[in-house]
Amino acid sequence: MNKHFQLSLDDLKKELLTMGAMVENAIQQGVAVIQERRPDIAKALIEQDDIVDRLEVKIEEECLKILALYHPVAEDLRFVTTVMKINNDLERIGDLAVNLAKRGRSLAAAPPFPIPPQFKPMAESIIKMLRHSLNAFVERDSILARKVCLADDEVDAFHKMILTELTQEMKVTPDKVDLLVNLLWTSRNLERMADHITNVAEDVVYMVEGSIIRHRMWEMPGDKGGAPR
Amino acid sequence: MNKHFQLSLDDLKKELLTMGAMVENAIQQGVAVIQERRPDIAKALIEQDDIVDRLEVKIEEECLKILALYHPVAEDLRFVTTVMKINNDLERIGDLAVNLAKRGRSLAAAPPFPIPPQFKPMAESIIKMLRHSLNAFVERDSILARKVCLADDEVDAFHKMILTELTQEMKVTPDKVDLLVNLLWTSRNLERMADHITNVAEDVVYMVEGSIIRHRMWEMPGDKGGAPR
Repeated sequence: MNKHFQLSLDDLKKELLTMGAMVENAIQQGVAVIQERRPDIAKALIEQDDIVDRLEVKIEEECLKILALYHPVAEDLRFVTTVMKINNDLERIGDLAVNLAKRGRSLAAAPPFPIPPQFKPMAESIIKMLRHSLNAFVERDSILARKVCLADDEVDAFHKMILTELTQEMKVTPDKVDLLVNLLWTSRNLERMADHITNVAEDVVYMVEGSIIRHRMWEMPGDKGGAPR
Repeated sequence: MNKHFQLSLDDLKKELLTMGAMVENAIQQGVAVIQERRPDIAKALIEQDDIVDRLEVKIEEECLKILALYHPVAEDLRFVTTVMKINNDLERIGDLAVNLAKRGRSLAAAPPFPIPPQFKPMAESIIKMLRHSLNAFVERDSILARKVCLADDEVDAFHKMILTELTQEMKVTPDKVDLLVNLLWTSRNLERMADHITNVAEDVVYMVEGSIIRHRMWEMPGDKGGAPR
């Protein structure tokens, strides 16, 4: 195999993992802005997102260069197109973390209020999903990637619980509607992050196994049910 | 140029436009479920989404086949990778239309209620954005594509107006919170469609001009401001 080609693929992998680490950090910070009422973190996070954005463009340009220069086929081609897609999803997760921080900033301006108890475990699940999906990418582990897809249901369940509680509270304390709607968006934000991570995991399965498993075609053998997204 | 290669590109374009037409239809139907209280439409729409999902996978497989077989470069390479991305965004818009229809179905089970007046013009703007973005793709018209990006602000403005009205109503009629939260999600759904269409338009600019203009790098020359997404 061409040595330059192999080096390019290695660099690509490293850059994607840097992107992954930055995005994980962004989620942690976005959650902290809300959970610990730390609006001061928001500013740095928003600035850092510019770097994430630029890295996304850089990675995409690298991918296109590799496709044009080396004409990869089979596994290598799948690797490059998978990096393109994961890159895109990671960038959007970064955007969602910024949205979270912005909302957290306006929430922190209000008097202290209870955060739904599911918020923290939900965020933890999401970070675990992200780590596992990137490990699955590095280790080419499609079984782990499929597990990440399944974990999305857990996050959806947290989101539903939060929604039910918040709408219930709106009914009894209509004067708190603005605050409660804001909290509702934060939960929605986290839930969308999990959707993007599921995309990442689906893309890893494709990279490893060569078959596209979107649209909940990823249920483990023996699984029952599972409505289409 | 290889004749088979050119034919493959033509087929790809046709299939993507079929996908676009199906998704436009899905938006129209999703909006009708809510606007005209037509839960009967929802079932057909949900079934049709399976076809959209399968077409997405087919188009992606075609793209990978073309990359592996013909090793396109420059403009042709950009065309193929752009189709991959637009395809992905169109599929997600289709999912959002299904979500809209599902929510419309549960809304139609409640006694009649007023739909926010901005809902209809907002949906019309979105359909116009989608048509223009696909025209821009066919005509390789990056100026039209940039206009589509700008139109996203109009949709965001509608969304904000709807949010303000709905949260205001929650405060005065807390017994209607469930209904109002449902309406809030429908507006959010439409707004996310517009975001995906903006992605499509950005991809067209990349295809035509060869430069990546994500992250609101698409402001027309002379434009001022515009916060990052």
